[in-house]
Amino acid sequence: MKILFLNGPNLNMLGTREPDKYGTNTLKDIENFTRIEAEKLNIEITFFQSNIEGELVTKIQEAKGIYDGIVLNPAAYTHTSVAIRDAILAVNMPVVEIHLSNIHTREDFRKISLTAPACIGQITGFGIGSYKLGLLAIYDYLNK
Amino acid sequence: MKILFLNGPNLNMLGTREPDKYGTNTLKDIENFTRIEAEKLNIEITFFQSNIEGELVTKIQEAKGIYDGIVLNPAAYTHTSVAIRDAILAVNMPVVEIHLSNIHTREDFRKISLTAPACIGQITGFGIGSYKLGLLAIYDYLNK
Amino acid sequence: MKILFLNGPNLNMLGTREPDKYGTNTLKDIENFTRIEAEKLNIEITFFQSNIEGELVTKIQEAKGIYDGIVLNPAAYTHTSVAIRDAILAVNMPVVEIHLSNIHTREDFRKISLTAPACIGQITGFGIGSYKLGLLAIYDYLNK
Amino acid sequence: MKILFLNGPNLNMLGTREPDKYGTNTLKDIENFTRIEAEKLNIEITFFQSNIEGELVTKIQEAKGIYDGIVLNPAAYTHTSVAIRDAILAVNMPVVEIHLSNIHTREDFRKISLTAPACIGQITGFGIGSYKLGLLAIYDYLNK
Amino acid sequence: MKILFLNGPNLNMLGTREPDKYGTNTLKDIENFTRIEAEKLNIEITFFQSNIEGELVTKIQEAKGIYDGIVLNPAAYTHTSVAIRDAILAVNMPVVEIHLSNIHTREDFRKISLTAPACIGQITGFGIGSYKLGLLAIYDYLNK
Amino acid sequence: MKILFLNGPNLNMLGTREPDKYGTNTLKDIENFTRIEAEKLNIEITFFQSNIEGELVTKIQEAKGIYDGIVLNPAAYTHTSVAIRDAILAVNMPVVEIHLSNIHTREDFRKISLTAPACIGQITGFGIGSYKLGLLAIYDYLNK
Amino acid sequence: MKILFLNGPNLNMLGTREPDKYGTNTLKDIENFTRIEAEKLNIEITFFQSNIEGELVTKIQEAKGIYDGIVLNPAAYTHTSVAIRDAILAVNMPVVEIHLSNIHTREDFRKISLTAPACIGQITGFGIGSYKLGLLAIYDYLNK
Amino acid sequence: MKILFLNGPNLNMLGTREPDKYGTNTLKDIENFTRIEAEKLNIEITFFQSNIEGELVTKIQEAKGIYDGIVLNPAAYTHTSVAIRDAILAVNMPVVEIHLSNIHTREDFRKISLTAPACIGQITGFGIGSYKLGLLAIYDYLNK
Amino acid sequence: MKILFLNGPNLNMLGTREPDKYGTNTLKDIENFTRIEAEKLNIEITFFQSNIEGELVTKIQEAKGIYDGIVLNPAAYTHTSVAIRDAILAVNMPVVEIHLSNIHTREDFRKISLTAPACIGQITGFGIGSYKLGLLAIYDYLNK
Amino acid sequence: MKILFLNGPNLNMLGTREPDKYGTNTLKDIENFTRIEAEKLNIEITFFQSNIEGELVTKIQEAKGIYDGIVLNPAAYTHTSVAIRDAILAVNMPVVEIHLSNIHTREDFRKISLTAPACIGQITGFGIGSYKLGLLAIYDYLNK
Amino acid sequence: MKILFLNGPNLNMLGTREPDKYGTNTLKDIENFTRIEAEKLNIEITFFQSNIEGELVTKIQEAKGIYDGIVLNPAAYTHTSVAIRDAILAVNMPVVEIHLSNIHTREDFRKISLTAPACIGQITGFGIGSYKLGLLAIYDYLNK
Amino acid sequence: MKILFLNGPNLNMLGTREPDKYGTNTLKDIENFTRIEAEKLNIEITFFQSNIEGELVTKIQEAKGIYDGIVLNPAAYTHTSVAIRDAILAVNMPVVEIHLSNIHTREDFRKISLTAPACIGQITGFGIGSYKLGLLAIYDYLNK
Repeated sequence: MKILFLNGPNLNMLGTREPDKYGTNTLKDIENFTRIEAEKLNIEITFFQSNIEGELVTKIQEAKGIYDGIVLNPAAYTHTSVAIRDAILAVNMPVVEIHLSNIHTREDFRKISLTAPACIGQITGFGIGSYKLGLLAIYDYLNK
Repeated sequence: MKILFLNGPNLNMLGTREPDKYGTNTLKDIENFTRIEAEKLNIEITFFQSNIEGELVTKIQEAKGIYDGIVLNPAAYTHTSVAIRDAILAVNMPVVEIHLSNIHTREDFRKISLTAPACIGQITGFGIGSYKLGLLAIYDYLNK
Repeated sequence: MKILFLNGPNLNMLGTREPDKYGTNTLKDIENFTRIEAEKLNIEITFFQSNIEGELVTKIQEAKGIYDGIVLNPAAYTHTSVAIRDAILAVNMPVVEIHLSNIHTREDFRKISLTAPACIGQITGFGIGSYKLGLLAIYDYLNK
Repeated sequence: MKILFLNGPNLNMLGTREPDKYGTNTLKDIENFTRIEAEKLNIEITFFQSNIEGELVTKIQEAKGIYDGIVLNPAAYTHTSVAIRDAILAVNMPVVEIHLSNIHTREDFRKISLTAPACIGQITGFGIGSYKLGLLAIYDYLNK
Repeated sequence: MKILFLNGPNLNMLGTREPDKYGTNTLKDIENFTRIEAEKLNIEITFFQSNIEGELVTKIQEAKGIYDGIVLNPAAYTHTSVAIRDAILAVNMPVVEIHLSNIHTREDFRKISLTAPACIGQITGFGIGSYKLGLLAIYDYLNK
Repeated sequence: MKILFLNGPNLNMLGTREPDKYGTNTLKDIENFTRIEAEKLNIEITFFQSNIEGELVTKIQEAKGIYDGIVLNPAAYTHTSVAIRDAILAVNMPVVEIHLSNIHTREDFRKISLTAPACIGQITGFGIGSYKLGLLAIYDYLNK
Repeated sequence: MKILFLNGPNLNMLGTREPDKYGTNTLKDIENFTRIEAEKLNIEITFFQSNIEGELVTKIQEAKGIYDGIVLNPAAYTHTSVAIRDAILAVNMPVVEIHLSNIHTREDFRKISLTAPACIGQITGFGIGSYKLGLLAIYDYLNK
Repeated sequence: MKILFLNGPNLNMLGTREPDKYGTNTLKDIENFTRIEAEKLNIEITFFQSNIEGELVTKIQEAKGIYDGIVLNPAAYTHTSVAIRDAILAVNMPVVEIHLSNIHTREDFRKISLTAPACIGQITGFGIGSYKLGLLAIYDYLNK
Repeated sequence: MKILFLNGPNLNMLGTREPDKYGTNTLKDIENFTRIEAEKLNIEITFFQSNIEGELVTKIQEAKGIYDGIVLNPAAYTHTSVAIRDAILAVNMPVVEIHLSNIHTREDFRKISLTAPACIGQITGFGIGSYKLGLLAIYDYLNK
Repeated sequence: MKILFLNGPNLNMLGTREPDKYGTNTLKDIENFTRIEAEKLNIEITFFQSNIEGELVTKIQEAKGIYDGIVLNPAAYTHTSVAIRDAILAVNMPVVEIHLSNIHTREDFRKISLTAPACIGQITGFGIGSYKLGLLAIYDYLNK
Repeated sequence: MKILFLNGPNLNMLGTREPDKYGTNTLKDIENFTRIEAEKLNIEITFFQSNIEGELVTKIQEAKGIYDGIVLNPAAYTHTSVAIRDAILAVNMPVVEIHLSNIHTREDFRKISLTAPACIGQITGFGIGSYKLGLLAIYDYLNK
Repeated sequence: MKILFLNGPNLNMLGTREPDKYGTNTLKDIENFTRIEAEKLNIEITFFQSNIEGELVTKIQEAKGIYDGIVLNPAAYTHTSVAIRDAILAVNMPVVEIHLSNIHTREDFRKISLTAPACIGQITGFGIGSYKLGLLAIYDYLNK
């Protein structure tokens, strides 16, 4: 089983970026943490990050046929990107949306996700744990 | 570790209730499934369901000191209950909100949760899997 | 044919409650009046009233298999209860929504019904007559 | 007792018009069905249909003194016509608003009725039965 | 003179519930404090608390003929309960609405009260003092 | 100088139509009253009334070249007719909008006029006097 | 008959103020023009202008018992002043609201008048003519 | 192949009506221009114009069985007519909506079309060219 | 203890101003009534009224160091004045907002208070009693 | 004549992307189909697709001086891109907006186009035919 | 060159007013600081402050012919004063709007400025620096 | 001191792009103009422009540690980019937002800035002067 972890804008800044909201782990820390969990389940994972909406769109398109599923943290694009939503619908693959912080406790515009309606489901608020939960969610979904 | 699973209105109808949206498992099936997962983690779980908003409020209040955390599926009250939100804030315990269906794919009024801002986080859309993921989320949270 | 008449909050106060809006008949008067109509059609009816949203939810759930249909006056819960809406969808029984007063002539928040989209139809504004019309509506529906 | 049944735009297309929403009866079928019910109650009924808002306004005005009441299916004009609302208020006659389909299950703009606040009440969702129920509603109202 | 003090959901948690917002007095403390004030005015008071919306509705209904007035802290139901609003209108008794915290300084949804339009007036923001002021307000109203 | 007085739906019902809002004068009374004022100013006036939006549109179109200006009481169509607005813009003639009642004291939807932005100005609330004031307004405008 | 003409903020700048919107007459020109019309009708008029909302409020209060009516051009305060609205209601005198430009052709916030609902009626869009029409409107109203 | 070109209110005024928005061609010019295009494709076309919403509804109804498709310029009724929308749905024929001007560059209320959701598609902004494009669109649709 | 009672626009008209809403007491009556209550508590009170928003702002600023607290009835400025809100925040003194009528039973725009979020709390609906309750509220607050 | 066909995000997925909405033709198929039409008109066309908003912006900027016009299918960026709107305004070239599906039949957020107000016009809903119609529209526009 | 610095309500309280938002400089400090900058540029400046909206209006009117430009800090009136907006338009002088705090980081109602559309531009968020920047902005503007 | 000037989409088109809104200077002209000002203050500046949102995000991230501050003209992305807002928050550097045109005089959607709440302040409307003012603003901020 191969899973792509796709990370949106500014997630490459984790560790120093607003640590009270996003914690002190870097994206590399999260990748290592997730890889350990993945190995327990015999899943091969790939981490990719981009600040460019269109690159995330392209990456989703290219995932088709290579990966069994996607765990997506669209970050800021969650609330503004119809293009990512359409990309998920276009590839017709299982995608799980995750967020580090609880989007329901923040600015009003962060409560609405344009991308979640195209996903299986959404996991929000568990910090680094959201990556682990996202992995398990897609794993169980694919094993059904 | 003791966790309370609190289930809102109409979840006692699972199995026959709109199976295309909520699946064919009964609440008892979900409880058994969750118990197996809980035993692996050495967690003692209790399932409670009520159709009455105020009973759910009371149950959250009483959980303080007995349980280490709550996994809450507020069902219809997600979108209308300030009282449950206030109860969570009042007990100041870790609560994880879960939903069987993906609330982002349904009527607009189901996209907004009044209760989620009082919780650690929210997991939505993984069917019976949302209970397992909720269990893991609270477990990891308490072990931090 | 067995029909349940389910009455929401404050309908037990009929007769003295805002008589210019709701008339001077008590709920017992309405029950007697409706029973006479029901006997003409050979229908067995049961009247139930509760001020508690969750009890109305439970009553709808229990109606399944006992009654052929429900005539529902959700009163104040018409405008605030997703739980009753979900209960109707869960039992998948024919339900007719009725109101004594014409909800379209009152405060704006009373013009929208959260429960009506889950019902066959809605009858509003005919005072005690709404109960008779509701009875006929469900009767004809079941005979189709 | 003389009752006018006033039918708005596109109701002359019933039978072939979106039969999943409006059924397969023609307006003539509905008239015949209603006439049978009317004869049981010794009511003389007249059916009139127009696609033109202003003709419906005129017909309501002319009903005064000729008919004892009106059963009105404003169809599409329900949601856009202040003129029909004003006509009902101008004649100060009892009017019952009816709809074949349940307007609460359709597009948002169909949930609000501009004409209902000027009527005694509204009956929506019972197909051809709405005409019978409308007849009974006006009959009982006039006999009070 | 007999006055009922009716307390809504989570007010039984006072003392430990979000003390920065609601203070450190328990509901019992508030009752004792209020009783002292009431005795000065020769008023007999009863305190009642419930987490269940429908029980509050019922309590308001039963107050008629037993109490001369009600001081009501609807708590979370202030913003969601049409049923309590209708109950107040149904009993046609003087009711004074009170709040411990200043609802105008909190979330937007707490600024609108569904129940206040059915009351004589509203007192908000004086902590335990709101109970004393509510008592005086109803006392003076009844003495007019 | 020739002026067309164009009257919208239900104005033919004046005299009996909601007399507390519109007064007891018939449209004929208003016409006679206005004619007397017009004769003082040596203006030839024509009164026309229709319940049909499209006929009012046509009448405005035909006024071009025959009349020097129009005094328009669009009645209910004030708030719903883009077609009449477009007709006024199409003929590029001076039009004065008038209303018998003060539209600012009525339902919210009556406060916005779709037609007024295409007119020179609007006069609202002076009963039969609005016709006289409308006549003077167009007279002075044409004499400028 | 004595009439007060009350002019709001920036009307003292007429003549040089945005002449394409408000014309080239000064407020003095308008006063002279209006006085000529008033003398024909044997009306004594007073012109007052202030840029201060509260002074306009006070002037309305003081008009009671001295003037028979007020012609009010609230200018910018039309859209923001509840205080002027309340002053008109407080004195319970006939007030006619006038505007030089057609408020319906301008920014959206200028289409709603907070003051008009407290007046007999409103005249908008006739330039200097609005003053003459306002005079006639109040004259005819007082002679009724 | 027979195509009906249906033209809404004020399109009979083309040529003189707001030429900067709609051009200087009359409706007859447009008809001639369209006829030349139609003859190239061997299509028989009929032009019809009405200012009356209900007549347009009727014409759509009557088109069934006579025409293969409709090119519809609903003009002002685009934004206000549920009746025309329902008529299109009722006849279940291919309809192409066209506009001379680009509705997206005008008042906000012109950006939303009530009729377009019932059509195959919409062409807006190409002046007289919209008629030619509408003809080609329906032609290609029918040839598929 | 010295308390300033600050009264907004039109409160100088009390007694004759809309007596069904505001009662028949003049502001002087209210002052006398309040003074009697104040003397019981050994409080020195000053009454000030202005129709001018900016004078109220200035008065709040000047109260600092002279008065221990303010009881403020902002009247119409409650709903429109950011300046008064800012003045209260600027002086950082305890202010209690009061209203004679229950603002929750009136026009929608009167339900929102711009000034209340800067105050300790708000008392609304008790007529002249609101002044007494406001006095007690500030007294108890200062004694805490 | 040289025309640029600019295609937004996910259009490279055509053929497999939601075929019920977008058809089974690939973008290459559409290009070939359009080229045949272009050759008939002696137009040289270029197809370009990008998933990156900023690349589309750059491409529009570079089109100036090379192409005579642009046919633009902004896809998801239609509803979110002010940058593309500004690019069109910046180059001041004729642009025709096209869509494969009828945007008026889809989610509400797809009904509003941020880019269309900067274009000559918009063609929506004709599948592959929208490309042909867009080509003809720009061709006729340039030949005017 | 002569520039008027116009300061709105509560700016006379600077130094003690919410120092975390507005800093600890008094308005006199700001004046002195600005004067030093002005002298470097050989500009004569005048500082004026008022809490009264209408006085600010008058001051703007009187500035015409005396000053070359205005630097305006409307403070609370930024968000509520159409009168100041109209005054700026009436004098047709260059006005630069400034704010001490960044209005975009505060309550939603402070994000919209009614006065800015009548100004050349707006500078917000630089504390005392906003006065210096405002001075430079008007200086450069006048030198163009 | 090193300052980065970051320029958003279409600013590379300055000079030819809508010159009535943005002036006739090219971005190179602006850079030269700004450099002269910077040299006076002994500041080293870098100009960067991109049409790609994600590149602007990346550039902000990379500025950390190299530059002392950023002057940002986000252009079209001002109103749509949460990603740039998050990037500013992530680097926690001083950023000043500038605009050439006064955004308050344009379309409504341009009045709200998603990026400004993450900046120190905003300067809008001074054409090329906004760059100079932005430079001074960041210079003074860094020298504090």
